Amino acid sequence: MPMTYDPKTFKALTFHDAAPGFRDGADTPRAYLERALETIAAREPVVHAFAHLNDAGARAQADASSARWKAGTPLSPIDGMPVAIKDLLETKDMPTEMGCKAFRGNFPKRDNAAVWALRQAGAIILGKTVTAELGGAHPGPTTNPWDPTRTPGGSSSGSAAAIAARMVPAALGTQVGGSVIRPAAYCGTLALKPTQGAINRGERQATSQSTTGVHAGSIEDLWQVAIEIASRAGGDPGRPGLFGPPTAPLAVKPQRLIVLETQGWAQLDASSKSAFETLLEELRSADVTLLRRKDHPWIEALEEAVANGREISNALTHWESRWYQRNLLDQHPEGLSARAKAAIAHAESMSVDDYRAALMQRLAAQQRHEAIAPLADAAIMLSCPGTAPSWPGDSPGQPLASRPTGDFVFNAPSSMLFAPAVTMPLLSVGGLPVGVQLMGQQHEDARVTALARWMSGVIAPVSVR
Amino acid sequence: MPMTYDPKTFKALTFHDAAPGFRDGADTPRAYLERALETIAAREPVVHAFAHLNDAGARAQADASSARWKAGTPLSPIDGMPVAIKDLLETKDMPTEMGCKAFRGNFPKRDNAAVWALRQAGAIILGKTVTAELGGAHPGPTTNPWDPTRTPGGSSSGSAAAIAARMVPAALGTQVGGSVIRPAAYCGTLALKPTQGAINRGERQATSQSTTGVHAGSIEDLWQVAIEIASRAGGDPGRPGLFGPPTAPLAVKPQRLIVLETQGWAQLDASSKSAFETLLEELRSADVTLLRRKDHPWIEALEEAVANGREISNALTHWESRWYQRNLLDQHPEGLSARAKAAIAHAESMSVDDYRAALMQRLAAQQRHEAIAPLADAAIMLSCPGTAPSWPGDSPGQPLASRPTGDFVFNAPSSMLFAPAVTMPLLSVGGLPVGVQLMGQQHEDARVTALARWMSGVIAPVSVR
Repeated sequence: MPMTYDPKTFKALTFHDAAPGFRDGADTPRAYLERALETIAAREPVVHAFAHLNDAGARAQADASSARWKAGTPLSPIDGMPVAIKDLLETKDMPTEMGCKAFRGNFPKRDNAAVWALRQAGAIILGKTVTAELGGAHPGPTTNPWDPTRTPGGSSSGSAAAIAARMVPAALGTQVGGSVIRPAAYCGTLALKPTQGAINRGERQATSQSTTGVHAGSIEDLWQVAIEIASRAGGDPGRPGLFGPPTAPLAVKPQRLIVLETQGWAQLDASSKSAFETLLEELRSADVTLLRRKDHPWIEALEEAVANGREISNALTHWESRWYQRNLLDQHPEGLSARAKAAIAHAESMSVDDYRAALMQRLAAQQRHEAIAPLADAAIMLSCPGTAPSWPGDSPGQPLASRPTGDFVFNAPSSMLFAPAVTMPLLSVGGLPVGVQLMGQQHEDARVTALARWMSGVIAPVSVR
Repeated sequence: MPMTYDPKTFKALTFHDAAPGFRDGADTPRAYLERALETIAAREPVVHAFAHLNDAGARAQADASSARWKAGTPLSPIDGMPVAIKDLLETKDMPTEMGCKAFRGNFPKRDNAAVWALRQAGAIILGKTVTAELGGAHPGPTTNPWDPTRTPGGSSSGSAAAIAARMVPAALGTQVGGSVIRPAAYCGTLALKPTQGAINRGERQATSQSTTGVHAGSIEDLWQVAIEIASRAGGDPGRPGLFGPPTAPLAVKPQRLIVLETQGWAQLDASSKSAFETLLEELRSADVTLLRRKDHPWIEALEEAVANGREISNALTHWESRWYQRNLLDQHPEGLSARAKAAIAHAESMSVDDYRAALMQRLAAQQRHEAIAPLADAAIMLSCPGTAPSWPGDSPGQPLASRPTGDFVFNAPSSMLFAPAVTMPLLSVGGLPVGVQLMGQQHEDARVTALARWMSGVIAPVSVR
């Protein structure tokens, strides 16, 4: 049964404001964890955010953290924070099943680089969240916390839903096409999809535009988790890693923003478009100059370069995954969904030259994005094409619904541009969340976060029927 | 007991010239394989090139290939070629133990991308070759085919030795610092270390300057193996892959070559230096203009940028490997050598900013390399600092020999510059091989191969006492 989402009143779980209590003894990480576990017990039967929960291990970690806070020696500002990990990332104390039959029971006894860094910072690795199969399009069991008949988005379905259901203050997701930003937008929560490679992906280096991102209930926790990971595990091999301050950047008001329509504009419903335009009007009232495609030929040039971003992203990612997924399929003929098999078939119809053509389109788009840097502080756009869709499941004999976790048409741009993006829960349409994102130039993660902090604090959310 | 190496008379095993026999029925891939297995049986007890040999599987693959050739339908020019695979790369029909105690018995049932491509081209995956532990500095059991008291070089020890011992016509290696070019140079064989990312590394994406390379007994086979892989599996995610013709490029005479000293010059023995200078004199006699550091300030600038290439490469690679190796060590406290533990300790003494500083040095060196492109057709330099050293093994209580598989001081440049390099067996010093390499600009793999083909065909090898 749907719960009405109101961005003006919804308050997600936060951790940064718990530290004073840990310090003075009014609260402890163990007590914080127990409250989170109570919420999980209450909501999980419907939300299904978790693929695995390590409550015993988490309690032991929380006790150790409580002792450190009591002794005045926390390992970091996120010592004791319960964090949920998308089930694509390896964890030494829980299986990593990737939402995929072929990986049932898969349990490598090692930590992904980001998980390893979180443990070094004292964070509690509470559980693994449901992912769409292999980070692709085939959904897991998670439902949208605001309406169980709708998708939470994907592929980081469980991570976004766990934040929206107030189960945890932060969770890790990953994005190749739109897998961090879109589920956060459908669930009404914050998320950071960093610059390509800014957070070390560890063992998951197989595709060229995937990033590890952070879901959180507050900007403070969002940034803190990202920077604690990056300062310990760095970025991807050959990348400089996340740049920015050791705690969340202060709010910065933008002078100018570029409004991007992207490939998604044409298919957007009237209510979402109206809500977004109302939000833009608020920005204008706050003396933010807005520039659109008609205002500058270079903006138009970028719009054109991302106008088939979804197809470019799919071509790149399918090709890059093909030998790996073909191996998997050969070994587990029944281990992949029909959707994954269709992606393999697409990849196997491509040649090296097809791949090179898509690479060149991506590179050209990146150059056009770089060109607009002097025009504005950042770009603003929707994070998803309207509210989360319903998907009743596949019907035998019927064609597959192409995107049961929603369309990444507003997310392909930041993915293919390797650009940092922060989605903010600023719109509600018919009682369901719709996200709005800011996107910056590569390595401007901190700047985009600062602008998002200003917007989240100053611009009133917009609700339409 | 040492065998004298004479580059003028040594003839490695070749495959490209076997095809006519396969076509007219005078020979078959199965018979070719049996001859290779006979050589392996004769030499392996001393050389120890192989970690695993799949002779039964290879015979079945050879029979299938023989049938294809008989039917006039080979899958590619390398259909039926027995290829050996460095034991860092996964193979679905053999274990992948990486020369590392922690990986004993490791047997993922899948193929590395390059192995997958080789099978698609009909090549026979004959065995896994010995690698130094995890591709690092700690040696495996392989001996130099020209002197069993000496190292074959590392880390692609078995791949280079298998070519020099005429066991196979081609083998795959990998290079992070100097692991393809150096062992080939010490063993007196050809090898191509391609442009960074030109051959898909598959599951091995963990370090930013590692490449999959090819060892072979002839330029024709060297190129054919590389291009057959790249045309099927492409390059690394986000890279355009190997550029070049579908069969080995024709010989091209260089007009101008840049002679690079690199970090290795200062520690080079007089005999090797004299042999190299004699070879350069031959080039001059053939009307090739040679430019050295004193001839142009940009060459001097490049020399300066690679003057600590070994240290830059180690900083980058150790840092990038650290979370992975720390995980491994936590799980297998006795599973890594003291040498590997020292590399982890080095990495764990570094900060993100130390890594960034090394990245910036590498980037600056790449820019200086790009700057010299108009000055010459390629660069020429030694492939190893003299002949292969002896290493009697570690002595308990004594400090570890720092580089028992030899020094990569002449190899760090091509690795850190992401540049293609071909090493040629053109020198012999005291009856042992010393390699000479050509290095080109990024993506000029075919050009460097064409120049190497000219040099190998026209310039007489030099032997000194």
